[in-house]
Amino acid sequence: MSEHTRQLTAFLADLAYEDVPEAVLARTEDLFLDWLGSALASQGSHPIPLFERYAQKMGPASGPANILVNGSRSSAYFAALVNGASSHLVEQDDLHNSSVLHPATVVFPAVLAAAQDRGKSGRALLLAALAGYEAGIRVGEFMGRSHYRIFHTTATVGTLAAAVAVGKLLEFDQEQFVNLLGNAGTQAAGLWEFLRDAADSKQLHTAKAAADGLLAAYLTEDGLTGARNILEGEQGIAAGMSSDADPSKLSDRLGSRWALVETSFKFHASCRHTHPAADALLQLMQREGLSHEQIEQVTTRVHQSAIDVLGRVVVPQTVHQAKFSMGTVLGLIAVHGKAQLTEFHTLALTDPNVSAFREKVSMQLDPEVDGAYPARWLGRVEVTTTDGRRLAAAIDEPKGDPGNTLSRPELEDKFRRLLAFAGARSPEQADELIALVWRLRELDDLGVLA
Amino acid sequence: MSEHTRQLTAFLADLAYEDVPEAVLARTEDLFLDWLGSALASQGSHPIPLFERYAQKMGPASGPANILVNGSRSSAYFAALVNGASSHLVEQDDLHNSSVLHPATVVFPAVLAAAQDRGKSGRALLLAALAGYEAGIRVGEFMGRSHYRIFHTTATVGTLAAAVAVGKLLEFDQEQFVNLLGNAGTQAAGLWEFLRDAADSKQLHTAKAAADGLLAAYLTEDGLTGARNILEGEQGIAAGMSSDADPSKLSDRLGSRWALVETSFKFHASCRHTHPAADALLQLMQREGLSHEQIEQVTTRVHQSAIDVLGRVVVPQTVHQAKFSMGTVLGLIAVHGKAQLTEFHTLALTDPNVSAFREKVSMQLDPEVDGAYPARWLGRVEVTTTDGRRLAAAIDEPKGDPGNTLSRPELEDKFRRLLAFAGARSPEQADELIALVWRLRELDDLGVLA
Repeated sequence: MSEHTRQLTAFLADLAYEDVPEAVLARTEDLFLDWLGSALASQGSHPIPLFERYAQKMGPASGPANILVNGSRSSAYFAALVNGASSHLVEQDDLHNSSVLHPATVVFPAVLAAAQDRGKSGRALLLAALAGYEAGIRVGEFMGRSHYRIFHTTATVGTLAAAVAVGKLLEFDQEQFVNLLGNAGTQAAGLWEFLRDAADSKQLHTAKAAADGLLAAYLTEDGLTGARNILEGEQGIAAGMSSDADPSKLSDRLGSRWALVETSFKFHASCRHTHPAADALLQLMQREGLSHEQIEQVTTRVHQSAIDVLGRVVVPQTVHQAKFSMGTVLGLIAVHGKAQLTEFHTLALTDPNVSAFREKVSMQLDPEVDGAYPARWLGRVEVTTTDGRRLAAAIDEPKGDPGNTLSRPELEDKFRRLLAFAGARSPEQADELIALVWRLRELDDLGVLA
Repeated sequence: MSEHTRQLTAFLADLAYEDVPEAVLARTEDLFLDWLGSALASQGSHPIPLFERYAQKMGPASGPANILVNGSRSSAYFAALVNGASSHLVEQDDLHNSSVLHPATVVFPAVLAAAQDRGKSGRALLLAALAGYEAGIRVGEFMGRSHYRIFHTTATVGTLAAAVAVGKLLEFDQEQFVNLLGNAGTQAAGLWEFLRDAADSKQLHTAKAAADGLLAAYLTEDGLTGARNILEGEQGIAAGMSSDADPSKLSDRLGSRWALVETSFKFHASCRHTHPAADALLQLMQREGLSHEQIEQVTTRVHQSAIDVLGRVVVPQTVHQAKFSMGTVLGLIAVHGKAQLTEFHTLALTDPNVSAFREKVSMQLDPEVDGAYPARWLGRVEVTTTDGRRLAAAIDEPKGDPGNTLSRPELEDKFRRLLAFAGARSPEQADELIALVWRLRELDDLGVLA
């Protein structure tokens, strides 16, 4: 195996709870709560019931692991599958910028299911999730922008992130991590093609990444060997699915850089690529005291991936597509001041003011923004007013980014809103879950997290 | 969607049992028997028990579908998974040349499991398997040689082949097939990197292709939408994993060309890339009356993929690696006259004559052979004898290829040998299974195939 893979797997094997700074543990709890809210918020929404029915058809009638959206129990595999589908649906789960990976939606479904299956503690879960984040983010950075142009990194690299988390939970040594990366990497799959049809693949992707990662870890534990150089080998994932892979990313500051804390929380309920422009527009409108009627035209100056991912959607036909429509997101911001789940579900497709505003919005590639991406997601908008003024605004760190993060009260508020939106739990149950998560590292039995 | 995808999905939806020529149906039965023997022959061999245990851990305690190697029953998903792992292990399953796809090991596990689950007849299974072969082979040809250089086509394209077979069994219309291709294609995964480590990924690949294809079909039936242009789209499988894709292959002579009958049976128990040279060497030694001691040197003139796949193995450490060692295969042929399972397991790693012969063998890229590949797998060997003669032999169609196929008695003999090798079934049981397969199109209940 290569030196970078050797360093990464040694780090994963050696990582101990005692070595993790308190702030990193606390942020892992934050991310867990944020994830749990996203998973529960999808209750009843298409296509989640399809995954629930599939688990009923193919899985055992009961088991050690919770399927969150319906409170049923199954084997760890199906809990990972359904919870993985659930937690990415409302587009409110976290994102790591420079890897363009959504770690929570693949790491937590797998590691919670495995922890419930194997009777592991909250501390073990936190440490394992951290390992999944640290590995997944570095592999995502390693795979580069060329990968993300065609592949849904959260699906492909997500399989490895989920696998590493479960492997850490199962206390793998370095040799097992080497095989695990091989077994997970060779299952890495997921293409962006579905976006232009507003198809359901995103849920399939995260479901499969979580479940396949768990499968890789269980089979590796039982002795299945994998390619020893799946990341950097001549017929490995970078050789097959990247043209700008950078192996040094794999071992970047292991043990001193905690990539998990660089992960952003989502504030708006839309594709993260819309957030910098949304925040910049909001700032500009507040600064200038503008209403949406006073705006003639908006040019968002964006990075190339924003155009690749969002450029497909001209007139959104579904709520999901609306979340990938820059014009719709900015329309909600301009007309209603926010673009949360409620706005998407009640206004995004039906409010004529929003559609009218959508037509005023265009995207333009900006070399500075593109150069900073994906390490930094800069927001730049240029506005022409109806009275002929040309205004501009810039934000360097969108709301939810590490330097502009959500506090625990803000996270609790978001959690309650997510659960209320879906009618998933009562306000009292929401508060109980919040309290449980803030005590995660004291819990010996994770079966209570249902 | 593109015109080729439209034609392919229309063909799949319209394909009717009555339209299939008798010879094609009969060959489908031949391929089914050949597959069943390969699956049963893996009983007890690593890593198959790992998949059996995984199915026990994660699946239901019983179910409608048979896990062949242990006679247990589970849900269709786990039967497809374990049987998919099983049937590629002994490297005796079929191969379609120009697509470099092993269709049986992905199509039959999925379609048999689904047929048992849904109470479908033998006729329905044959038609569905045929659809899987026709689609899978064309998608494999479409993806081209650049894909196979890094990706294990039987894993990637195999997911689509398995999905189409199950979709046909579930009587999908064209619209469902469009979504099915999207749902299967976005799960397509599998890298060759494992080969150089002799890792267990091949079993993981075929297991997952069969099971993921089945999952795609069941979810599509229930309403999961997929990308409508996964094959040819700008962010589809060819865009991501091929540089020489040829869309016209997707609709190549649909309804008049039956690609299934082009599929080759394996005669030697090794990687198919070794077979042309093995047959050519055997012919040369018989023609010249040579023994292995009289041979000083063998140059096999091969296509590039043979070098890519076989070139990693210098001194094989495992039986599986020996099957990917051109020198070992030719050594068994030269010293023992055959390279069947028994020779691999008793002689390939231990017979000093075989290892000595291995050292005499080299591979050399041959423009003519490479140009004909993958449509034709030409065998060319040049031999230098110890007394200084330079001899050559050429075969244009290795044993088992469509123009040099195995007869039913030869297939029955192979089936009995495979079962006897593994001790999987008694000779009487083997004969009963053979009789059942030859009556497949009369069977209403496929639960008897256990």
